[in-house]
Amino acid sequence: MQALKDKILSEGKVIGDDILKVDGFLNHQIDTKFLEEIGCEFKKRFEGCKVDKILTVEASGIAVACETARQFGSVPVVFAKKAKPNTIVEGCYSAEARSFTKGTVANLRVIKRFVSEGEKLLILDDFLASGEAAVALIRIAEKAGAEVVGFGAVIDKTFQGGRKRIEDMGVRVEALASIERFESGKPIFTNDN
Amino acid sequence: MQALKDKILSEGKVIGDDILKVDGFLNHQIDTKFLEEIGCEFKKRFEGCKVDKILTVEASGIAVACETARQFGSVPVVFAKKAKPNTIVEGCYSAEARSFTKGTVANLRVIKRFVSEGEKLLILDDFLASGEAAVALIRIAEKAGAEVVGFGAVIDKTFQGGRKRIEDMGVRVEALASIERFESGKPIFTNDN
Repeated sequence: MQALKDKILSEGKVIGDDILKVDGFLNHQIDTKFLEEIGCEFKKRFEGCKVDKILTVEASGIAVACETARQFGSVPVVFAKKAKPNTIVEGCYSAEARSFTKGTVANLRVIKRFVSEGEKLLILDDFLASGEAAVALIRIAEKAGAEVVGFGAVIDKTFQGGRKRIEDMGVRVEALASIERFESGKPIFTNDN
Repeated sequence: MQALKDKILSEGKVIGDDILKVDGFLNHQIDTKFLEEIGCEFKKRFEGCKVDKILTVEASGIAVACETARQFGSVPVVFAKKAKPNTIVEGCYSAEARSFTKGTVANLRVIKRFVSEGEKLLILDDFLASGEAAVALIRIAEKAGAEVVGFGAVIDKTFQGGRKRIEDMGVRVEALASIERFESGKPIFTNDN
């Protein structure tokens, strides 16, 4: 998605060897006009796929999931929770995920009645790095007996291995911008998207 | 908003004396079709107000804020963060907020360059209970010298005092459903909206 690559180059900021900050339009401040373009692009990428529900994880995945859900005819969105609030008193599917940016391990949870057997799930997130969150969401879907239509990330840092991990699980991956490496503080995109 | 009251009565669940669970359509699973109605209603309530940006807090406020932003002509959304990820390396405005449902204290943070002096902010959240998060967001806006156009909550549990706290700060409050009290495990709505 060229508009995304342009936006990353003009507004993103590389920190150290592996962090790309895009908090000006995606995960702190959200450019809601651009968000619509992201939703449309995911719809295009997964055109022809039946999607019953979109699964994501709090917090940055929520905006992307809701906008994409609208493009799929306003299907429901379920976001996995990272902490267990005392309002959750019923059975959950859970799976652990290490947070790349926070250095912590979160136990992602989804209440059982919100993911059903045979349901066709599109899993979305803002970033795909080492794939920890994505793998945890796929595990949750598997535990529920749901079918994962695919995994979509706005930005994929391919060099961190997450994409390969998910594809090795047999899940289709679509990333709107894939970064091969950082060079002199700038992202170098792969040529295939 | 009658459709919301109906949905709370049919799908919500009261736990104990003060918790209302609406995780089937608002803060775990999101009914994105209904979310659009919520966004339209906020637009109607704040009709005629100039809104430059919508401020909310992760995680459940994000969907409501993004959909309402779309109704206001796709203004940007900024969501305050509860934890400090290692990607935040610059100056922030911050304010403490006790979490009613988690029993913890969070330090809400917004990077300074995302809220500006004179900017007209509409602050939104899913719930208004004791008003901790709302007050913290208003304090952040004040620190930035921004102007708070109003505070909007999808559901206001008036009996927990948050509404009065915010109104006492001189900020207009709009709630799409206000709950006066719980009675025999059912919410009793105030008559005025």
